[in-house]
Amino acid sequence: MLKISERGIQMPASPIRKLVPFAETAKKKGINVFHLNIGQPDIETPTEMLDAIKNSEIKVLEYSHSAGNESYRRKLVTYYKKVGINITPEEIIVTTGGSEAIMFGFFSCLNPGDEVIIPEPFYANYNSFAVAAGVIVKPVTSHIETGFSLPPIAEFEKLISSKTKAIVICSPNNPTGYLYSKNEMEELKNICIAHNLYLFSDEAYREFCYDGEHFSAMHLTEMDEHVILMDTISKRYSACGARLGAFVTKNKAVYNAAMKFAQARLSPPGLAQIMGEAAIDLPDSYFEKPKSEYLSRRNLLLKRLNAIPGVFCPNPGGAFYAIAKLPIDDCDKFCQWLLEKFSYKNQTIMLAPATGFYGTSGLGKNEVRIAYVLNLESINAAMDCLEKALEEYPGRV
Amino acid sequence: MLKISERGIQMPASPIRKLVPFAETAKKKGINVFHLNIGQPDIETPTEMLDAIKNSEIKVLEYSHSAGNESYRRKLVTYYKKVGINITPEEIIVTTGGSEAIMFGFFSCLNPGDEVIIPEPFYANYNSFAVAAGVIVKPVTSHIETGFSLPPIAEFEKLISSKTKAIVICSPNNPTGYLYSKNEMEELKNICIAHNLYLFSDEAYREFCYDGEHFSAMHLTEMDEHVILMDTISKRYSACGARLGAFVTKNKAVYNAAMKFAQARLSPPGLAQIMGEAAIDLPDSYFEKPKSEYLSRRNLLLKRLNAIPGVFCPNPGGAFYAIAKLPIDDCDKFCQWLLEKFSYKNQTIMLAPATGFYGTSGLGKNEVRIAYVLNLESINAAMDCLEKALEEYPGRV
Repeated sequence: MLKISERGIQMPASPIRKLVPFAETAKKKGINVFHLNIGQPDIETPTEMLDAIKNSEIKVLEYSHSAGNESYRRKLVTYYKKVGINITPEEIIVTTGGSEAIMFGFFSCLNPGDEVIIPEPFYANYNSFAVAAGVIVKPVTSHIETGFSLPPIAEFEKLISSKTKAIVICSPNNPTGYLYSKNEMEELKNICIAHNLYLFSDEAYREFCYDGEHFSAMHLTEMDEHVILMDTISKRYSACGARLGAFVTKNKAVYNAAMKFAQARLSPPGLAQIMGEAAIDLPDSYFEKPKSEYLSRRNLLLKRLNAIPGVFCPNPGGAFYAIAKLPIDDCDKFCQWLLEKFSYKNQTIMLAPATGFYGTSGLGKNEVRIAYVLNLESINAAMDCLEKALEEYPGRV
Repeated sequence: MLKISERGIQMPASPIRKLVPFAETAKKKGINVFHLNIGQPDIETPTEMLDAIKNSEIKVLEYSHSAGNESYRRKLVTYYKKVGINITPEEIIVTTGGSEAIMFGFFSCLNPGDEVIIPEPFYANYNSFAVAAGVIVKPVTSHIETGFSLPPIAEFEKLISSKTKAIVICSPNNPTGYLYSKNEMEELKNICIAHNLYLFSDEAYREFCYDGEHFSAMHLTEMDEHVILMDTISKRYSACGARLGAFVTKNKAVYNAAMKFAQARLSPPGLAQIMGEAAIDLPDSYFEKPKSEYLSRRNLLLKRLNAIPGVFCPNPGGAFYAIAKLPIDDCDKFCQWLLEKFSYKNQTIMLAPATGFYGTSGLGKNEVRIAYVLNLESINAAMDCLEKALEEYPGRV
């Protein structure tokens, strides 16, 4: 009998995936399902990006440079300059989505058995890439009561051992929407310098900040050796399917190691890089519309959620996610029940149980993540459903 | 001082990469460099594939299913049926190039410390993915004198220990062009069954067989649990930059493990999948032209090579590579010398030193890999260069 690998066993399954069959059954029954469970924006991909491919005259779709086309990396430099990040094309590796940037970071910097501290709840796939790399995630708990702000540094200190090699931060955050302040980023800097840690910074949602400015890990001074920026165009330009991201660091040794991983997989997607160049040529005003759309949605969502008895949702400063506390026994049961047993006006909602975003078992049982990737009308209808559902749900507490 | 990871250190750099600066310098001097060093076909990507994107009406470029769009997987089933491979859409994971299929295979099936046997010379990046996965490659040497045919099974047996978990085979082969016979594939089957090993089969060049039929690992009976097919459209349709491949297995446990890795990276590239569907709609006659072009090139290359005194090149049955033995002291030195010191009629050639394809240190020192990805005229001119170069090279033996 052939065996699969240990990491193949340990690899977590997608926390949302187990709900998919229930959503499919609901749809087969004719029920309209509002998908608030995934970070797939409904905002249209800018036509300029798709037109760039349509107008291209490719004869042979060749491998690009393993670090990505130089023309694209040069354009990225101008993009980063606009957001106050000064880098050169030789400090960028164009990646296959932000996912590959995470992978390059973990594989280039961490040994099997090394530990990485991540404020929880966190993007579930950090755990997947950690398992792939043999790295252990040590969660430090952030709390809904404080709006998921940075846990006290003393909580980080408690987790630091000789095996601790890095901190992962995601700002604005998926799944909480929390936007880390300059002060909080400075606190992270201090702990990284004091304990000689890498700071992996996932800034996928940089453009979508509603209450304050984005402060990048790349804005920190004296941190050139520590910071690895993991970036993507997926959310920025509603181009998730392009699979185009970036791995950015001023640490030459890390860059050179990551380049060897990049060379092994030959090149990032070619057509996506054409889209990426066109994206950077978009006018600066481009973000106004999607940002104001997300902001209206956030405001509506928050108003509706906090008006439901027993529900609490802190104000997310960025991204397009919120985590809400519900008067329920178990979010996994509740999310399944919504799809399997419930409908209101022939409609229901699909939510992401927050348990999947916590590294500490048992946390988040009365929380759900809501992605506001639907228009205002749908959000209203979805909140009508949630309100009714919480009245009817047998596991209400 | 922050340290990079052990695997970041061990990760091999691309064997060709170190020659790139010399090629660039030669070009700056105005010398025309014939690139016979890389597997980047010059054959045009079918316009139908690019037109499919141009004619698509994408509003939001969304994540696809982590296993790839079902419509594409269904089409792949019809493609595989034509080449005598019966699979279902649920046995396919669409990958980001063949590279990711290799990665999914290694990570899903092998533990750190496990060993995998690969006939050498082999595709250098197998080693890179092995290092990433903590897996040890045990090379079994194939020889130029026998045209790089399968080493005797006794040689495999010698390498098998309790740590041996898999064999990797690539047919037709990169870098040798060797096309494994049905008999050889059956021999591999027997050893895999006898020792409970996975058989990873890289069939990137399936369509390009000149002396006999392709025999796929998927054609082997009683091997459903053992075989993992690692595939790509890169060479088949001259679409290397699309980054589109496939991981195919009938082993349900392996499939499920690989799916968790696939979910972690969300989805394969979306636009490439549109190209992939269009590729499968190409008429069956599509391959006639590139295949006959490659065949003419191979015949010319072989004739020219074997006419040079002291050169021996066995007849490669497939792909678009050949390994030639040259009357030289050291292929790394020779390849660098070609770019740095030599030109003939203001032209020179870039070749891949074969040392980079051997796992056993010291082997392949008088061999080079030649990719016939240039037209007949260029091949002739390149062989003129090689002939002159071997007359002039100070390290001739």
